[in-house]
Amino acid sequence: MTEFDTGLPHVKQIQKYIVDKQEVEFKLATDDLLVGKIIWQDPACICLVDHYDQPTIIWRHALVYLKPKA
Amino acid sequence: MTEFDTGLPHVKQIQKYIVDKQEVEFKLATDDLLVGKIIWQDPACICLVDHYDQPTIIWRHALVYLKPKA
Amino acid sequence: MTEFDTGLPHVKQIQKYIVDKQEVEFKLATDDLLVGKIIWQDPACICLVDHYDQPTIIWRHALVYLKPKA
Amino acid sequence: MTEFDTGLPHVKQIQKYIVDKQEVEFKLATDDLLVGKIIWQDPACICLVDHYDQPTIIWRHALVYLKPKA
Amino acid sequence: MTEFDTGLPHVKQIQKYIVDKQEVEFKLATDDLLVGKIIWQDPACICLVDHYDQPTIIWRHALVYLKPKA
Amino acid sequence: MTEFDTGLPHVKQIQKYIVDKQEVEFKLATDDLLVGKIIWQDPACICLVDHYDQPTIIWRHALVYLKPKA
Repeated sequence: MTEFDTGLPHVKQIQKYIVDKQEVEFKLATDDLLVGKIIWQDPACICLVDHYDQPTIIWRHALVYLKPKA
Repeated sequence: MTEFDTGLPHVKQIQKYIVDKQEVEFKLATDDLLVGKIIWQDPACICLVDHYDQPTIIWRHALVYLKPKA
Repeated sequence: MTEFDTGLPHVKQIQKYIVDKQEVEFKLATDDLLVGKIIWQDPACICLVDHYDQPTIIWRHALVYLKPKA
Repeated sequence: MTEFDTGLPHVKQIQKYIVDKQEVEFKLATDDLLVGKIIWQDPACICLVDHYDQPTIIWRHALVYLKPKA
Repeated sequence: MTEFDTGLPHVKQIQKYIVDKQEVEFKLATDDLLVGKIIWQDPACICLVDHYDQPTIIWRHALVYLKPKA
Repeated sequence: MTEFDTGLPHVKQIQKYIVDKQEVEFKLATDDLLVGKIIWQDPACICLVDHYDQPTIIWRHALVYLKPKA
């Protein structure tokens, strides 16, 4: 997966959200909106935790967009 | 499929769910929610069994997210 | 397509359904449910026949899940 | 695209439908059903003509299933 | 992308529509129908212009089918 | 990802929209329309900012089409 290279802008931005513990919002292919903090990313998935520290593993192929929560 | 590498966080987390016989919930591209225990994973699929030990083979490309059941 | 390797669990399970003439159910990306017996698989497709021996070629990229019929 | 190899069952079956001028039905990812005769296939697309010989180029990634018309 | 090869039937047909300034109709994965004239194609996208010469860049992965307008 | 090559028409057109600070409209696979200015592109994503300079990272696989705002 050449599109997962730690030097790419989107990978670095997600890494910054992890370090900053930034709350973010993901829009998924099913139209779901998931809100939480990203704790890790790998070439196929991103892991989000909610307020109760419940982890959700999201597949990258199902991602539509990502925004920081205001 | 470089995104299926047994050292990746999501593959290891799924492996842990298999070993722990953790009940999990999958959201699929069709908006279905499937609940059960994962019994194996391979590069293209994940196999879930329900309370009656009925197996369901899910294609990874149809996965949206995965959560442990509370 | 490395994800089509005859040693993989999902390929072997499908092969077993073919040999056993097991009736199965496929959920597709369009939300359709197709029921029948699998007669062959190749790296891109799976062929199902219904009660009238009418063949349907299904593309793997459209597969969501597969279950044996109870 | 290794999944387009002229020796594969689904490619040969489609080739047979072309030679036989068999009327077929395609289910697409948008839930559309297209009916016609296949006139060519290439690694990315399949071309169908209707009763008025109007061609429609369908992308393989949008194919769900294919059946001969009874 | 081996499926973008200028010798393939679908690439040549699209090239012919460009040269002929043929009005065409695209069905997209979102179920939208876009009508216009194709002005260029590259391995990932196709560019369509409408009656006001407004360009729309369409991603190939979102294409379902293509027809000439009658 | 050979389909991300800075010499390709769609990559150059997006680069031009970045330089021109052109307001654009994206149609996404979920049927959402996002409006804003593109600030960067990489092989997997495109980043859009709205009137409040709020960034949205969009995955390319979820893109359907792109138009300049009139």
